[in-house]
Formats: sequence, C-alpha cells, structure tokens
Amino acid sequence: MTADDTIGTGDLVVAVDGGGTGCRVAIAERSGRILSTANGGPANVFSGFDAAVTNIVETVNAACVAGGISVEQLRQADAVLGLAGANVGDAALRLPKRLPFRESLVLWDAETAIRGGLGGEDGAAAILGTGSVFGAVHGGTARLMGGWGFVLGDQASGAWLGRRLLERVLLAHDGLLEASPLCDVILSRFGNAPEEVVQFATSAGPQAFAGFAPQVLEHAAQDDAIALDLVRGGARFVTASLKKLLPEGASRICLIGGLGAQYAPYLPNEITVMLAAPKGNALDGALAIALERYGAA
Amino acid sequence: MTADDTIGTGDLVVAVDGGGTGCRVAIAERSGRILSTANGGPANVFSGFDAAVTNIVETVNAACVAGGISVEQLRQADAVLGLAGANVGDAALRLPKRLPFRESLVLWDAETAIRGGLGGEDGAAAILGTGSVFGAVHGGTARLMGGWGFVLGDQASGAWLGRRLLERVLLAHDGLLEASPLCDVILSRFGNAPEEVVQFATSAGPQAFAGFAPQVLEHAAQDDAIALDLVRGGARFVTASLKKLLPEGASRICLIGGLGAQYAPYLPNEITVMLAAPKGNALDGALAIALERYGAA
Repeated sequence: MTADDTIGTGDLVVAVDGGGTGCRVAIAERSGRILSTANGGPANVFSGFDAAVTNIVETVNAACVAGGISVEQLRQADAVLGLAGANVGDAALRLPKRLPFRESLVLWDAETAIRGGLGGEDGAAAILGTGSVFGAVHGGTARLMGGWGFVLGDQASGAWLGRRLLERVLLAHDGLLEASPLCDVILSRFGNAPEEVVQFATSAGPQAFAGFAPQVLEHAAQDDAIALDLVRGGARFVTASLKKLLPEGASRICLIGGLGAQYAPYLPNEITVMLAAPKGNALDGALAIALERYGAA
Repeated sequence: MTADDTIGTGDLVVAVDGGGTGCRVAIAERSGRILSTANGGPANVFSGFDAAVTNIVETVNAACVAGGISVEQLRQADAVLGLAGANVGDAALRLPKRLPFRESLVLWDAETAIRGGLGGEDGAAAILGTGSVFGAVHGGTARLMGGWGFVLGDQASGAWLGRRLLERVLLAHDGLLEASPLCDVILSRFGNAPEEVVQFATSAGPQAFAGFAPQVLEHAAQDDAIALDLVRGGARFVTASLKKLLPEGASRICLIGGLGAQYAPYLPNEITVMLAAPKGNALDGALAIALERYGAA
C-alpha cells in the first residue's frame, strides 16, 4: 500500500467458484465479512477458456456494482478461484493475466469443494456428481485423487454409472448377462432397439450418461440386480479411495455432490461412522482459502 | 434376361469389402471365376458415407478397366458389399441407389468376414481387431453378436485393451492398484505425467487406444500382472461369446482379425480344441454370398 491509498483500498478478497453450468462470486473484506455476491455464466477453463474469462469478469463486475465496490478496490483485491478444468492444461497459468485482481490463485474446483465441505478440519471427502474426485485435507494442506475424467476415470460418478448401465443393457440384449427390470426399462426407452442405444452413446457426453444415474440408484433401492451391482461397484471404489486418503488420526468424511449422499447406504460401517454433513460449499472453500492466504493477520 | 442381352451381359457378380482403411473389389463370373480385382480408399458407410460411395465406385471402375468389363455389363451385375458401419444408421438402405449395379446387397463387413473365415461351414467366429464382433453360421444363415462399438461394447478388442490399460495406469498412479512393469513403461512414455495420459484420451479414438494392444499382449506373455489380467478378462469375454453362439453340433471356431490368433493361448481347452484357421477373408465371404445368391444355378 502506498500513502496515496484511500481508505478501504486493498482491503478486499474475492472468491470465485466456476463450473460447467455457472459461476458464483463473493467479495469480502479481509476480516471475512462478505460485502457482495453474484451468480453468472459457465466457467470451465478447460472446455471454454475465453467464455470462462468473460463470465468470471462479468460476474465479478456485477458483484462490484451490487456492493458499491470500485474498480480501484478490485485492482487491489486478491482472489482465489476454484474452477472446473483447472486441473488440466495451462489455464491456471494463463488466467491470472486476464483477471482484474492484484493476485489470483487459480485452483481446481475439486480442491475448493473439499475445503468447503471439510471446513478446514482434517478429513477426507468424495465429490460424486457427473464426475468423481476424492480428496483429503491434513494440517491445512489438501491432497486430491482421481478425477481423471469420463474416458479413463471418474469411477463411481453419475457418468460412470450411466455408461456402465448402457453397456450392461447391450450385454443383456446379447444374452451374455441376465437382464433386470432396469435393463428392460432402459431398452424400451430406446424403442427396444440396441442400435439406438449405440447411436445415443456415439454423441453423448458425460452429462448425458449421468442422466441415467438417478434411475440406477432408484432401481438399486428396489434390489434390481444390475443396478445393485453397479452401485455396489461404485461404493467399493468410493470406500477404497476414502481409505487411501483419510489422514492418520482424522475421522471426518464428507460426501459432496449430487450423488454423494446417495452412496451412503452402500458404504461399509467403517466409513459411515465417520460421515459428517459438509460444512460449506465450494464458494465457501474458495473464500476460506482466500482469507487464509490474503486475510487480515 | 431378355432376348436382347448380348453374350456375357448379366453374367457378372461383384464383391466388395470395405472398411476404415480401404476397400477391395472382386468381379467374377456367375460361375465363380474371378475376372478382376482392385483396391481403393476407405469405405466406412457410417463415419463417411459420401467418401465410401466415391471410393467404392472408383474401385469398381478400376476393376472394370483392369478386366475389360463394360459399363453395360456392370449395370447388369449383382453385388454383395460387406462394409464397416453398415450395422448402424440407414446407409444399407441409401447406398444401393448410389451404386451402378442391378441389385446391391449391403451387409456389415463382420458378416462377410465371418462367412469368409468359416467358408460356408457351420461354426462360430470371433473378430478381434480395433473393435470386436462375434458371429456364427448355421445352415448358411449368419448370426452376429456384439460389435456395439468403443463407448459401450467391443469387449476384448484392441481399443478395449488399450483404454482399460490407461485406466489402470491412472489407478496405479493413485495407489489404488499395484503398478506393474507395463504401467511404468506406459506412464514413462507420457513423461510420467498422468495429466498427459488424460489429454491423450480426450482426443484419442478407438484406433489410438488399440495402438497399446500389442504391448498389452507382449507383457501378458511375460507374466505382467496387469497385462495378464486385462488379456484374461478379454479371453473370458471371447469364450462366453463363442459358447453362446456356437451352433449345436458345430465344432469349428475361427479367430479373425489382427488380435484373433493372439488370444488363443488364453482361451480354455474347450474352445481351443475347436480352433481352425480361417478359410478366407471378408472379400472371399462377400463373393461366396454373392455366388450363393446370384450365381449360376
């Protein structure tokens, strides 16, 4: 700060949570008091870097307008951004130059989500939505695992459940697997034509496959053999990942994401005894990291 | 035939084998004597319909020129085409209108390959290459199974082996699976950066994944635990499919395609005792079907 700074300048931190469907911004004083928030468009820096830049900047500006925050204050603010896609490619290096902040720390949104869920305590978390990522926090340091994406990873995720379901529908059609009621439901939705299932899969992305996950979980609850087998397979992966990650001495496990809580009934007792409700979301996590890093001493 | 037909007109059949890397044409008399053959460009009617039409017509024309066959003779000829991609979409219905023959029967190249391999005898066959398809012939009638493609099917294929290998490389990297020498070889090829494996997978098609299959088979032969597990998993699928398909009383099984023979050491005795070398290729199969259907009585 120079002697010319007006009161308040340099006093702000910005937290951003950005994903494939939208972004959220919170601007706070370095003491932690939130001054303004805003929601905006998608901000996945891997699949759409320029759109992400535009949407983040617009949403930040909207929050500034709402909170009466000046451009000069923003220029002196430090930001932590948890963004989908920041784990691959070089967006985390390129992005700060495009942002209006003094310093910008770009993290993978999995890290901010896990930090938000555990609320700064030691523990492990599973993020189970369209994709899957696992992570742990130990002494304030986060460690992430998995999240390698739809083609090679994201085991136990919604997309993983959906694709494997359709795979089994075709195996059952070929008589290599006993069909279950869920298979029949799915195949009939495709006019009982396996070719239509294949056509769908040719152009379907992770979100389209994940659209079948609710049915898998519903039918698993009704003891459908194939649905149960898929969910149990996912639960085994969740269990192995959490056990691998849980820091010694820690006993807090969070299930985050749209499918997180739905896996609970399929997890073993050694995991469920440690389950705790998430303390916050990914924006909370980004803000917590921002305050830790840039907050008032 | 009408009284106006000149000698030779209407006496020809055409066989076409078309796939993702090229097509082959044979023109024969209805007695079976081959007059001319030619090779040409790719002819996958699902991934590139118009290119397939162009390449097939050009290659047929080249065979006509080489064999001194007239346009009029071609117009009276009947054709059987075994083409990649003919099992999905409506190409099999649209294609005949674009071809210069009297009648055109468009089949999936899996059917002509299985027919060529079994040479008209009853039996079952596995086509194991970049993809996988299984089939049987019983009393001259072919039945096909599988071949649902990279995303949902093609179990035991080269692309399946390759994708599952990369999946395991990432699991081993995350410590969820014990790494094997093959894992280390593959990860080091990607500069020991799992992100690079994911980047590769994002844009890789089935053929790129199948590029890893030779290494999987090589390392399986050297008792690499992960390679062995993958190949044995594929072999179990091949076994189940062949047992499901083999017609009663038949005892001939053919392994076709670049990976076919390489699975033999991993198949159980009940299968290997029935293994027979393929009698011919997919062009032979298309020609055999053409002669059966359109040949001299």
